[in-house]
Amino acid sequence: MNFGFDDTTAELRARLLTFMDECVIPAERAYEEQAAVSGWGPPPLIEDLKAEARGRGLWNLFLPGEEGAGLTNLQYAPLAEIMGRSPSIAATATNCAAPDTGNMEVLAQFGSEWQRKEYLEPLLNGEIRSAFAMTEPDVASSDATNISTSIVRDGDEYVVNGRKWFITGAMNPNCKILIVMGKTDPEAPSHRQQSMILVPRGTPGLTIKRGMKVFGYDDASHGGHAEVVFEDVRVPADHLIGEQGGGFAIAQARLGPGRIHHCMRLIGAAERAVELMCRRALSRTAFGKTIAQQGVVQDWIAESRVRIEQLRLLVLKTAWLMDTVGNRGAHTEIQAIKIATPAAVEWILDKAIQVHGAGGLSQDFPLAGAWAGVRSLRFADGPDEVHKRSLAYRELKKYMD
Amino acid sequence: MNFGFDDTTAELRARLLTFMDECVIPAERAYEEQAAVSGWGPPPLIEDLKAEARGRGLWNLFLPGEEGAGLTNLQYAPLAEIMGRSPSIAATATNCAAPDTGNMEVLAQFGSEWQRKEYLEPLLNGEIRSAFAMTEPDVASSDATNISTSIVRDGDEYVVNGRKWFITGAMNPNCKILIVMGKTDPEAPSHRQQSMILVPRGTPGLTIKRGMKVFGYDDASHGGHAEVVFEDVRVPADHLIGEQGGGFAIAQARLGPGRIHHCMRLIGAAERAVELMCRRALSRTAFGKTIAQQGVVQDWIAESRVRIEQLRLLVLKTAWLMDTVGNRGAHTEIQAIKIATPAAVEWILDKAIQVHGAGGLSQDFPLAGAWAGVRSLRFADGPDEVHKRSLAYRELKKYMD
Amino acid sequence: MNFGFDDTTAELRARLLTFMDECVIPAERAYEEQAAVSGWGPPPLIEDLKAEARGRGLWNLFLPGEEGAGLTNLQYAPLAEIMGRSPSIAATATNCAAPDTGNMEVLAQFGSEWQRKEYLEPLLNGEIRSAFAMTEPDVASSDATNISTSIVRDGDEYVVNGRKWFITGAMNPNCKILIVMGKTDPEAPSHRQQSMILVPRGTPGLTIKRGMKVFGYDDASHGGHAEVVFEDVRVPADHLIGEQGGGFAIAQARLGPGRIHHCMRLIGAAERAVELMCRRALSRTAFGKTIAQQGVVQDWIAESRVRIEQLRLLVLKTAWLMDTVGNRGAHTEIQAIKIATPAAVEWILDKAIQVHGAGGLSQDFPLAGAWAGVRSLRFADGPDEVHKRSLAYRELKKYMD
Amino acid sequence: MNFGFDDTTAELRARLLTFMDECVIPAERAYEEQAAVSGWGPPPLIEDLKAEARGRGLWNLFLPGEEGAGLTNLQYAPLAEIMGRSPSIAATATNCAAPDTGNMEVLAQFGSEWQRKEYLEPLLNGEIRSAFAMTEPDVASSDATNISTSIVRDGDEYVVNGRKWFITGAMNPNCKILIVMGKTDPEAPSHRQQSMILVPRGTPGLTIKRGMKVFGYDDASHGGHAEVVFEDVRVPADHLIGEQGGGFAIAQARLGPGRIHHCMRLIGAAERAVELMCRRALSRTAFGKTIAQQGVVQDWIAESRVRIEQLRLLVLKTAWLMDTVGNRGAHTEIQAIKIATPAAVEWILDKAIQVHGAGGLSQDFPLAGAWAGVRSLRFADGPDEVHKRSLAYRELKKYMD
Repeated sequence: MNFGFDDTTAELRARLLTFMDECVIPAERAYEEQAAVSGWGPPPLIEDLKAEARGRGLWNLFLPGEEGAGLTNLQYAPLAEIMGRSPSIAATATNCAAPDTGNMEVLAQFGSEWQRKEYLEPLLNGEIRSAFAMTEPDVASSDATNISTSIVRDGDEYVVNGRKWFITGAMNPNCKILIVMGKTDPEAPSHRQQSMILVPRGTPGLTIKRGMKVFGYDDASHGGHAEVVFEDVRVPADHLIGEQGGGFAIAQARLGPGRIHHCMRLIGAAERAVELMCRRALSRTAFGKTIAQQGVVQDWIAESRVRIEQLRLLVLKTAWLMDTVGNRGAHTEIQAIKIATPAAVEWILDKAIQVHGAGGLSQDFPLAGAWAGVRSLRFADGPDEVHKRSLAYRELKKYMD
Repeated sequence: MNFGFDDTTAELRARLLTFMDECVIPAERAYEEQAAVSGWGPPPLIEDLKAEARGRGLWNLFLPGEEGAGLTNLQYAPLAEIMGRSPSIAATATNCAAPDTGNMEVLAQFGSEWQRKEYLEPLLNGEIRSAFAMTEPDVASSDATNISTSIVRDGDEYVVNGRKWFITGAMNPNCKILIVMGKTDPEAPSHRQQSMILVPRGTPGLTIKRGMKVFGYDDASHGGHAEVVFEDVRVPADHLIGEQGGGFAIAQARLGPGRIHHCMRLIGAAERAVELMCRRALSRTAFGKTIAQQGVVQDWIAESRVRIEQLRLLVLKTAWLMDTVGNRGAHTEIQAIKIATPAAVEWILDKAIQVHGAGGLSQDFPLAGAWAGVRSLRFADGPDEVHKRSLAYRELKKYMD
Repeated sequence: MNFGFDDTTAELRARLLTFMDECVIPAERAYEEQAAVSGWGPPPLIEDLKAEARGRGLWNLFLPGEEGAGLTNLQYAPLAEIMGRSPSIAATATNCAAPDTGNMEVLAQFGSEWQRKEYLEPLLNGEIRSAFAMTEPDVASSDATNISTSIVRDGDEYVVNGRKWFITGAMNPNCKILIVMGKTDPEAPSHRQQSMILVPRGTPGLTIKRGMKVFGYDDASHGGHAEVVFEDVRVPADHLIGEQGGGFAIAQARLGPGRIHHCMRLIGAAERAVELMCRRALSRTAFGKTIAQQGVVQDWIAESRVRIEQLRLLVLKTAWLMDTVGNRGAHTEIQAIKIATPAAVEWILDKAIQVHGAGGLSQDFPLAGAWAGVRSLRFADGPDEVHKRSLAYRELKKYMD
Repeated sequence: MNFGFDDTTAELRARLLTFMDECVIPAERAYEEQAAVSGWGPPPLIEDLKAEARGRGLWNLFLPGEEGAGLTNLQYAPLAEIMGRSPSIAATATNCAAPDTGNMEVLAQFGSEWQRKEYLEPLLNGEIRSAFAMTEPDVASSDATNISTSIVRDGDEYVVNGRKWFITGAMNPNCKILIVMGKTDPEAPSHRQQSMILVPRGTPGLTIKRGMKVFGYDDASHGGHAEVVFEDVRVPADHLIGEQGGGFAIAQARLGPGRIHHCMRLIGAAERAVELMCRRALSRTAFGKTIAQQGVVQDWIAESRVRIEQLRLLVLKTAWLMDTVGNRGAHTEIQAIKIATPAAVEWILDKAIQVHGAGGLSQDFPLAGAWAGVRSLRFADGPDEVHKRSLAYRELKKYMD
C-alpha cells in the first residue's frame, strides 16, 4: 500500500497547477464578464486557453489509450481534482469537460470507424461539442426500463420519437451531435431493450426546445440543459452505436470514469471553498473577534477538512480498482463515491456560503453556483436513493444463502 | 391552554383560503409567464388581484391598530402561513409583502405626521413600494456596531454616504422610498450610534446600482435585491425617523413581527412542498413500485410532518407571547423561530426536490425557487450563528451568579 | 389560542415544584446509595416520600376520573414534565410511574369489578406494582400480528404459553400482577386475534427468568426489565380483561396517555440536562476560557433550548387534542411526539455528557443513565421507523383518490 | 499509489483471520459467561488463548522494532481491524490490548534499561498488565496545562500527590504498574511542566479507589476504569521516564500509534455491526416483509458501508504517513481519524442496535457494549471539540500572513 503519486502524475500535477495559476485563475473574472453576454456556449476567451493548454501538453488527459493522454483512472483523478478548483474554465480549456468526455469514451470504445472519424476526431480536437440524451421528463428514468423514447428500425434508417430534458450542452450551437438512449427492443429482457444512437444537430424532427434552469442558473456557458423533442427523427442505421440492444451496457461502461471525474472535480471545488471560507473568516470581524475565531466556524473548517480527506481517498481507491479489477469489480465503490461525494461537498459549500454572509449567495462569489451544480449531481445517473438501495442489496447478499 | 383558533381568525382563514383557491393558485402560471418578461417589479396581473383582495376585506392584514386590519400577531400568523403557499402572489395581492410590511410598521409606530401622510398612506393603499437598507457589503453587518454608512447632520439636512446591498425591492421603479440605517453618532454608546432615515428614490447621489442574485435568481418580480450606493445624498432633517440615535431600537422593534411573518410564510411553503412531494411520489413509478412506497421517501414525508407541526406551534406561541408580554419578553422565542424555521423548511424543500427528480431543480416547479428564498433567510437579520450565540448566552445567564 | 396554564395546572405545578425542591432533589444521593445495595425494586426511602407526596395531594395525578386526580391530559402533562427532572424518585413517590400508570388506566377503563377491586385498588394505593408483558424475543413484536404467545381457553381457564422480555418492573418482588398480551383467536381478522389477561405473580408455570440490561444498566430500582416464560400457565377465565379479541383495542387505548407521560418526562430530563450542561460549562476552564465561552458549546445550548420549546408545545397540543377530539383524532400527533421526542432528547443528553467530559459517562452524574433510558424509548411501542411509515401513509392518503 | 496489501500484511491477515475463526469467535460465549463471575481482569480462558496466539506467531504485533513483531503502522493497522471484530478477546490474546500497547511503546522508546527489564519484559510476555494515569476529575485535562497532580523531587525520590480517574485496567489486580502524568515543573514553559513516572501497584499512599462506570458497564474484564488517589506516594527518582519535563513530548509520541489502533479496532467493530445488522434484517419479518426489505434499513446499510470505506482509507493513509514522514507530519490526519472514526462508528452501531429491536440494547448482543466503548472514545485524549479546534487552526494558518 502506498499513498504517494507516481512520477507521471506528479509531473502532470505540477504542470497543470502552473497552468491554473498562470492562465485559469487569472481569467476567471473575464470569463464571467464574457459569459454574461455571450449566449449559449463558452465565452470567446476559451479558444485561446484551449490553444495554450494543448501547447502545454494538457489535452484530452481524461482519455486512456492512444487517442488520449493514455493515463489510468488513478493518474487522471488528481488532475480532475485540480481542474475542479475552477471547473468551467479548466475542464473546457483542456478538452476534459463533461459530457464530451463520456461521449468520447463511448465513441472510442464502441464507435464504428466512420463514427470515430466523423465525430470522435473533431471532439478530440475540441472543434465541436456533444450531448448525451438520457433523462426524460415523463418517467423516473433512473430505472432504465422506464425509458420511453423509441428507436424503431425502418428499412435503412432508425426513427426516433420521444422527449428528453436536462440534456447538458445541447443549447450550445456548436454541439453538433447527440448520443440518444432509447428503446429499440421493448420486448427483450429488461437490460437488452435499449440502444444508443447518434443524432446530428439539424436532423429534421429534432427540436432543441428550451433551456432548463438549475435553481436560477441557465448554465449558458456550459451550453445549458436543454429540453429536446424528437418527432419522427430519421437517421441512417449506421448511426447506431455498437449493437442493437447494447445501450444499457454502454451506459454502464460510460458511468465509471464519469463518476470519478465528477467526484474529483467536486473535491477540487470543496478545496477551493475551504480556502475561500478560511480567507473570508480571517478577514471579517464581528462582535470583537474575527469570524475565524468563532468556534462554530472552526468546527466547520475542521469537518470540511476531515470529510475531504476521506472522500478523496475513496475516489482514488475506486479509480485504482477500476484500473486493476475493472468497473465491475469496483461496482460498490463507484456507487459509494456517488453517494458520498455530492452530499459532503454540498455541506462544505453551504458552510462556505454561510461564512460569506449574503454575498455568498450571489454572483460575486463562485460558491452559490458551485452549490447548485453539486446539488444537481445528487440526481446524476439516478438519485442517490437508487444507488443506496442497490449498494445495500449487494451488502445483504453476502449473508443470503 | 387552548390550541384552537378564535372566531376572527377562523373566519379570516376561511375567507383567505377561498381567495387562494379562487384567485391565487389559478393565477400562478400566468404570473410566472408575465414575470418572465415584465422586468423589475410585480407582473401586471397583480393589480387586479390587489383590487380583488381589497374588495374581499383581505388587505393590510399584517398591521395592528386602526390603520391596518387590527389583528394581533397570533391572529395574523395563521393567515401569513396560508399566504406562504403561494407567497409571491398572495402576500403582494393582500398588501402584506415584505419589506413593505416592516416599513409600514416602522412608519406607523415611529413616523412623524408628515412621514405617515407622505409615505405610509400610499404604502397602505398599495400605490407605492419601499425598501429597507441595512446590510452592507464591506462589513459583517449582523453586528450593528459594524455599520459603516454615515448619516451626518449638516444644517437642516442629513448627508448620507455608504454602500448597501441585498436591498430587496429597490430594483422596482415603483419602490419610491428607502429606509436607510446608518451611523449618526459614532461616539455614542454602541446601541445609540445608529439612526434610520428616509431617502426618496431619485434623490441626487443615490444610485441603484445592480441586482444581486440569489442562487442565480434575480427575483425581479419582487423588485430584486439591489446594490445601492449613497454618495453625499442629502435629505431634509425631517426625514429622520424617530429620534437621532434611535435606529437600533427601531430595528429591534421591526424584527419581531417580521420574524413571525417570515416564519409562518415558510411554514406555508413547507406545507405546499409536502403536498407536492406526496402527489409526485404517488404518481411516479420506478423499479416496480411507486416512489410513495419507498421507505426512505415515507421517512421524509413523516419527518416533514413532524417538523412542521413543531415549528408552527413555536411560531404561534411566539406570536402569543409578543401579544401578551411584548417583544422583549418574547426575545428567546423570537430568536428560536429564526434558528429553527429556515433550517427545517430548507430540509423539507430539499426532500421535495429530490422526489421530483431533476425537474425539481428547474423552473417547472416552485420548489427550487422557494429553496433559494429559504436559504437566504438563514442570513436575514444576521446569520443563525449570531442568534444562537445570543440565545445561549441568555440561557447561561440563568446560572451565573 | 392561549398558551398559558389554567389555574388548576398552575396551582399543581407550584405544589409539585415545591415537593421537588423540598423532598425529591435532596433525596437523590441517598436514593442512589440505597439503590446500589437494595436489589430489585425501589430503595426503602421511597415509602416515606410516597406518604409525603400523598399527604400533599400529589397522588395518582395521571389518572382521570374519580379514581384518580381527575386531571385532563393537558393538565397532567406539565406535571409529568416536572417529575421528569428526577423521574426515578418523583414518579414513583407520586404513584405516577410506568408501567403501573398504563396498567391502572387499563383496569379503570376495561377491568371488571373484581379485577378493579383486586388489582386496581392496591395499585392506586401504591401497595403493589404491576407489569405489562407485550414484547417478545422471537418476533418483531411491533407488528402485533406477529405476537406468538398463545392464550387458549380450556374450560373455565385460559392457558398461557410463550416468552416475553423487557418486561419492565417484573423483577421487583412486589410486582404482583402482569397484564399479558397474547393470541386467543389466531384465525380472526388481524386486529381481533389478541387478548389481554391478568397473570398473578406466583402462578405455576410463570418464570421470571432474568433481568435484561439496557446499555449495562439493570434498572434494578425500577424492578428491572425481565425475561418471563409462560409454560402452561393457567388462570381462571375471569382474568381476561375486557372481551376476548379486544387486546389490540386495549393496547391502542393504553398508548396515547402513556406516550404523553413518557414524552413530557423526557422533556423534564432534557431541561435538567441543559441546566447541568450550563452549570458545568460555566465552571470548567480549558485553553484560557470557560467551556461556556466555546462557540460550539453555545451552539449546543441554543439548539437544545430551541428543540425543547418545540417538543413541549407538540406534546401539549397532543394532550389537548386527546382531551378534545379523542385518541383517534390525535393519532398523527401521538405518533409525531413518539418520533420527535426521544431522538431530540437523546441528542441533548449526548451534548450534556460531552460537556461533562468522561465523568458524564459515569455513575457520578445522572446523564448517562438518562441517555440509556431515552435510547430505549426509540423502541417503545415499536421502533420509530414503524411509526414514521404509518404517519407517512396517513399523509399520503390525503392525496389518493 | 497502490491500495493493495503487501505480502507480510496479507500473510498475517490470513493467519489472524484463521485464529479469529478457530479460536476467538467460538470462545465469545464462554468469555462472557466467565467474565460475568470472574471479577476484575480477563476471565481465565484468556490464558489458553494467549498461549495459542503466541504459538501461532500472533504476539506483540503492534510493536515495531526488535522487541515486537517489527511491523510498520501500515502493516499493523489491518490486523488491528480484524481484532476489532471481537476486541475483548482478540486484542488481549495477542498481547495487543490497550493501554499496555501504548505503555510498552513508551517503555521501549523512552524507558531506561532497568525500567525495560523490570516492566517492559513482563509486559511483552503478557505476564503483567499496566495502566496509564492521565485524566483528572477536577480539571479539563484535555488541556495538559490544567493537570494538577504534582510530582515533586525530594532527595532521591519523587513524591506524587493527586487524583486521577478513568484509569483503564487499574482495577485488575494483575495491573502491576502505573505510568502517571503529573507536573514536576509548574513554572516551566507550558509544555515542559509535565513528567511521567512509574508507580508500582502497592506503593504506600496509592489507593485504587473504585471503578468508574461507562454507561452501566464496569468493564471488569478489561480491568475497569479506576479512580486512583495518590497521597504522598514516594517512588525512587529512577522511576521517572525519560527526562524531567519530558512528559508532554512522551504523551504526544504515545498518541499516534494508539490512535491508529483504536480507530482500526473501531472499524472492525463497525464491520461486525454491519454483518449483524444484515443477518438480523434478513431473518426478521414485520408487516409482511423482511426488515431487510425496508428502504430505511437499506439506507442504513448503504450509509454504513460508504462510511466504513472512507474511514478505513483515512486511517490507513495516516498510518502510512506516520511511517513515512513521522507523527509530526501526520498531525492533521492523526486528528482527523480521531474526529471521524468514533462519530461514524457510533452511528453505525446505533443503527445496528435499532435493527435488533430491544434485544440490541441488552447483554444478548455485543452491540450496546460496543456502542458504550465507542462513545467513550469521543473523549479519549481530549474531547473531539478540542481536536477540531486545533485542526481548524492549522488549516487557517495556511492563509495567515
